Amino acid sequence: MRYAYLGPEGTFTEAALRAVDADADALACPTIQSALTAVREGAADRAVVAIESSVEGIVTATVDELATGGGDLAIAAELQIPVAFALLVRPGAALSDIKTVGGHPQAMPQCRGWLAANLPDGEWIPAASNAEAARQVGDGQLDAALAGAFAADRYGLEILASEVHDRPNAVTRFVVVAPTGPLPAPTGTDRTSLAAFLADDRPGALLEILTEFAVRGINLTTIQSRPTGDRLGQYYFYVDCEGHVDDARVGEALMGLRRVCADVRFLGSYARCDGGRTQVRPGTSDAEFAEAAAWLGRLRFGRV
Amino acid sequence: MRYAYLGPEGTFTEAALRAVDADADALACPTIQSALTAVREGAADRAVVAIESSVEGIVTATVDELATGGGDLAIAAELQIPVAFALLVRPGAALSDIKTVGGHPQAMPQCRGWLAANLPDGEWIPAASNAEAARQVGDGQLDAALAGAFAADRYGLEILASEVHDRPNAVTRFVVVAPTGPLPAPTGTDRTSLAAFLADDRPGALLEILTEFAVRGINLTTIQSRPTGDRLGQYYFYVDCEGHVDDARVGEALMGLRRVCADVRFLGSYARCDGGRTQVRPGTSDAEFAEAAAWLGRLRFGRV
Amino acid sequence: MRYAYLGPEGTFTEAALRAVDADADALACPTIQSALTAVREGAADRAVVAIESSVEGIVTATVDELATGGGDLAIAAELQIPVAFALLVRPGAALSDIKTVGGHPQAMPQCRGWLAANLPDGEWIPAASNAEAARQVGDGQLDAALAGAFAADRYGLEILASEVHDRPNAVTRFVVVAPTGPLPAPTGTDRTSLAAFLADDRPGALLEILTEFAVRGINLTTIQSRPTGDRLGQYYFYVDCEGHVDDARVGEALMGLRRVCADVRFLGSYARCDGGRTQVRPGTSDAEFAEAAAWLGRLRFGRV
Amino acid sequence: MRYAYLGPEGTFTEAALRAVDADADALACPTIQSALTAVREGAADRAVVAIESSVEGIVTATVDELATGGGDLAIAAELQIPVAFALLVRPGAALSDIKTVGGHPQAMPQCRGWLAANLPDGEWIPAASNAEAARQVGDGQLDAALAGAFAADRYGLEILASEVHDRPNAVTRFVVVAPTGPLPAPTGTDRTSLAAFLADDRPGALLEILTEFAVRGINLTTIQSRPTGDRLGQYYFYVDCEGHVDDARVGEALMGLRRVCADVRFLGSYARCDGGRTQVRPGTSDAEFAEAAAWLGRLRFGRV
Repeated sequence: MRYAYLGPEGTFTEAALRAVDADADALACPTIQSALTAVREGAADRAVVAIESSVEGIVTATVDELATGGGDLAIAAELQIPVAFALLVRPGAALSDIKTVGGHPQAMPQCRGWLAANLPDGEWIPAASNAEAARQVGDGQLDAALAGAFAADRYGLEILASEVHDRPNAVTRFVVVAPTGPLPAPTGTDRTSLAAFLADDRPGALLEILTEFAVRGINLTTIQSRPTGDRLGQYYFYVDCEGHVDDARVGEALMGLRRVCADVRFLGSYARCDGGRTQVRPGTSDAEFAEAAAWLGRLRFGRV
Repeated sequence: MRYAYLGPEGTFTEAALRAVDADADALACPTIQSALTAVREGAADRAVVAIESSVEGIVTATVDELATGGGDLAIAAELQIPVAFALLVRPGAALSDIKTVGGHPQAMPQCRGWLAANLPDGEWIPAASNAEAARQVGDGQLDAALAGAFAADRYGLEILASEVHDRPNAVTRFVVVAPTGPLPAPTGTDRTSLAAFLADDRPGALLEILTEFAVRGINLTTIQSRPTGDRLGQYYFYVDCEGHVDDARVGEALMGLRRVCADVRFLGSYARCDGGRTQVRPGTSDAEFAEAAAWLGRLRFGRV
Repeated sequence: MRYAYLGPEGTFTEAALRAVDADADALACPTIQSALTAVREGAADRAVVAIESSVEGIVTATVDELATGGGDLAIAAELQIPVAFALLVRPGAALSDIKTVGGHPQAMPQCRGWLAANLPDGEWIPAASNAEAARQVGDGQLDAALAGAFAADRYGLEILASEVHDRPNAVTRFVVVAPTGPLPAPTGTDRTSLAAFLADDRPGALLEILTEFAVRGINLTTIQSRPTGDRLGQYYFYVDCEGHVDDARVGEALMGLRRVCADVRFLGSYARCDGGRTQVRPGTSDAEFAEAAAWLGRLRFGRV
Repeated sequence: MRYAYLGPEGTFTEAALRAVDADADALACPTIQSALTAVREGAADRAVVAIESSVEGIVTATVDELATGGGDLAIAAELQIPVAFALLVRPGAALSDIKTVGGHPQAMPQCRGWLAANLPDGEWIPAASNAEAARQVGDGQLDAALAGAFAADRYGLEILASEVHDRPNAVTRFVVVAPTGPLPAPTGTDRTSLAAFLADDRPGALLEILTEFAVRGINLTTIQSRPTGDRLGQYYFYVDCEGHVDDARVGEALMGLRRVCADVRFLGSYARCDGGRTQVRPGTSDAEFAEAAAWLGRLRFGRV
């Protein structure tokens, strides 16, 4: 199985990919978009991409590409890994040697406090990825990189400081993206992802969307407005909810969205990585949906 | 076809029955309950009973008997007739001769203003029906009766004053009740009636019921809480909504109620007598429901 | 203190009045409307009237007169009493002697089962009150009356059967109505009554009204639609909610109704007779309202 | 008046600052956070920072710093400017000379289509700002920069291609941030910004927040969930709504949020830059709020 990921080697995404499949044939890509495109075009079977950080929120490149790209991809699985930053330097370097620090643009805000306290005069130089910054440290273009400790070996660097991120317990959730096809079977601890494009930007539209879920007893685990790019104030909503599209209540909610939205893109139903069981409120189990459908059939046939 | 109705001859209900079928074989019954029981037990094919007055509201005997009686009856049709009261007396009698006035208990409140102005000292004597009061006038037990003008002939009375009701344009809606069986076909101007028994009396339960309709774009035309009789503050809700149970949105709403209520009794889908067309909001037509169901089927099969 | 009530002597209402004030100067009135009018016109200081039966529901004459009458009355207190029917006859009479049974129109449906089992051939004759039926038994016009056992003595009758009502534990709630004036102080177990007239009969109007209460965490204990009498399908809503108009959340909800309804009539805040404490959800106590108001004042003054 | 902004000279933010005050004493800062800190610490009177892009959505650095930073800043004004990218090169350079293209990380996604069509082999090098990329082009470190055309002069560059962004009409909204203090007066075309921190992450919490606005007829213009950083799935909501905190309906909604949320941070009320008038639904004007408050006062005093 060939996996595309945001390279180069040594990124957190590669660490996630190795957690999915330690022996994967890995295809490093320069951007999230190109990793997903590799799956679309058959250069890879699957892509592993970050989708949400406990610190920075939704990874907009992933979400936007899934929601507004070609439409032939779906999330097949998810996993989360702790995000622990280390400060990587060339062997022998000390803090006082560091003039420039690089990393992915999202790395800096996660280490802002540590940098302010320990490298107040260091200049921040964004790079395409943390691993790219590590590579540049190896090449001498930068003095230090914020990256996972596992990147040190690959680029011949030393760990000058570990755990330099401000928030302990930071995690990033990654998804495995595959071409659309048969869905993973429901497990009772599933998540369903979708993008809902509003029919218009009238005030109550979001309330209407939330009500489609609430009336069927479905918990949302993520909701995020994203600009459609057409003009300020025009959004689509990226939504993760509990349950599987094969669950009756989730299926009916999706049909409700389909009817009231301009467009709904289904982005997959898959087992949750955090093991939280789906809450099923009274009146919303598959058995209760089936019983109600049988009852309705009898009513329509003229029996009460 | 044999029809049971609230007799005796000369009631508004008989007038309604004649509007349904001028040549009906009519079975006069002493109460609304007994008229409905006659259909249940096969003594009549159908019953014509009042269900709502524009002045007095829901006719609770009808609603309670349909909602909590045997469960084997359904509304098959409806009609409304104007309710115009006349003051009926023995031939030759004048206002000054009237000491006692009788009628159905609901007749008096509809004529209260006229009575206060014209018969301030008249004593009100309730009767089992307006026609029964007219009969008693004929027998000399009462001096005057509030009843439909059409009752005068039958009991050998005169119309001393017509249009004695306080509100012009008062109407009563009647329903034709039949044993459950094949439903009337949808017409596009239908009404559906049901009784919803709450699972518990928690505060948000009514809001929850209303939301099941609202989220599917269904207008309610009547909603009425009725005591279940068990204790103060415990209710069921009688609901009339626009549309037919064969409409996808109405069917889904009924299934929703079935799932979240302790019990739902379906009381019929039938053509509205007022000709108002069912409002169908964007996203709630049968075609849109069908399209969404087909889309969901494709999703579940793994196609986006 | 002079109390008006629905007479004659021996009604359940008189029993309620005596429970309020055993030595009251009692003014028997022929109808609920006339009892309330007596207070309006100064012929009595207060009226005791039934407002809700656990069997028959809202007493529409009371509710309609409070909601649409002169507007100068309010509920000052409430109480509930058990409703136990007895069958009263002339001394020495037996079941087999009974051809006719009388009582208030609401008495019969509460005893229907007993009557069908024990007096299947008895004719039902409605009367203006149960006590009036008892009086007619004494006078020989009727053979038996459904009434409270306490009416037997007054009319020289015997109790042939007691507890003849079909449902045990039936109760009726009565209210003490007074001219508007200073309100009873909040007790923590209060009820507030009001009538809300919709601005128009658009579908979502009831949902809107319920939301004004729900968003402020207020439980409703009664909600009842009543026709305005203008035409079928046009309603006002009679509402009882938990709490006192002096409670911040109730006051804000009432202001919300005032703004979105065509009219709101306040019908009183008074101690509940059932002792149920008002539920106060997090964020809706008076202290939390006061804190939020102080915070808003600071914001508007330019402090965050 | 001294303004802090995201420098260096030549950024879109500087263009926005000049639109606010052409002769401002401008303090270039390396990050959005440092621009806001400059105001907090008195190094500048105000800061001009981007808050929303029609292409990329909310500017999370701005929103997070306002919502979770020191709490002593508020938005005093807003403006929006078109975002038009040009490709800047050293004088005389041609497309075929370009190996590397730099710019702010958000610049690339906005020009992705143009780059793919015209510079398919160009390597993308992120920079701290577009202007920094332009500076690097001037220094010979990069071959081309995506930046505003106005940056060309400052760095001695030429415009090789203009309007290279994929979406026409892209705009960015900027806000002027000042220390908290007296608010701008209401204009009838105002916006109010706030951050709402949920009391817990229960499913209905967002629905509850939206209802606080909806029940008072207030339109939202932006709503965005942001991680609190504590763990995945825990959010606060950044909200822009129509109207001014001095408007009665906005004030009451804010108090409602204050009561039901763990925390609410008010971020300012200020005139909208797009001139859209605040929609005031029936029943929600200041006059209607005042009338309802006067009515409530009378009720509490015992007058109906």
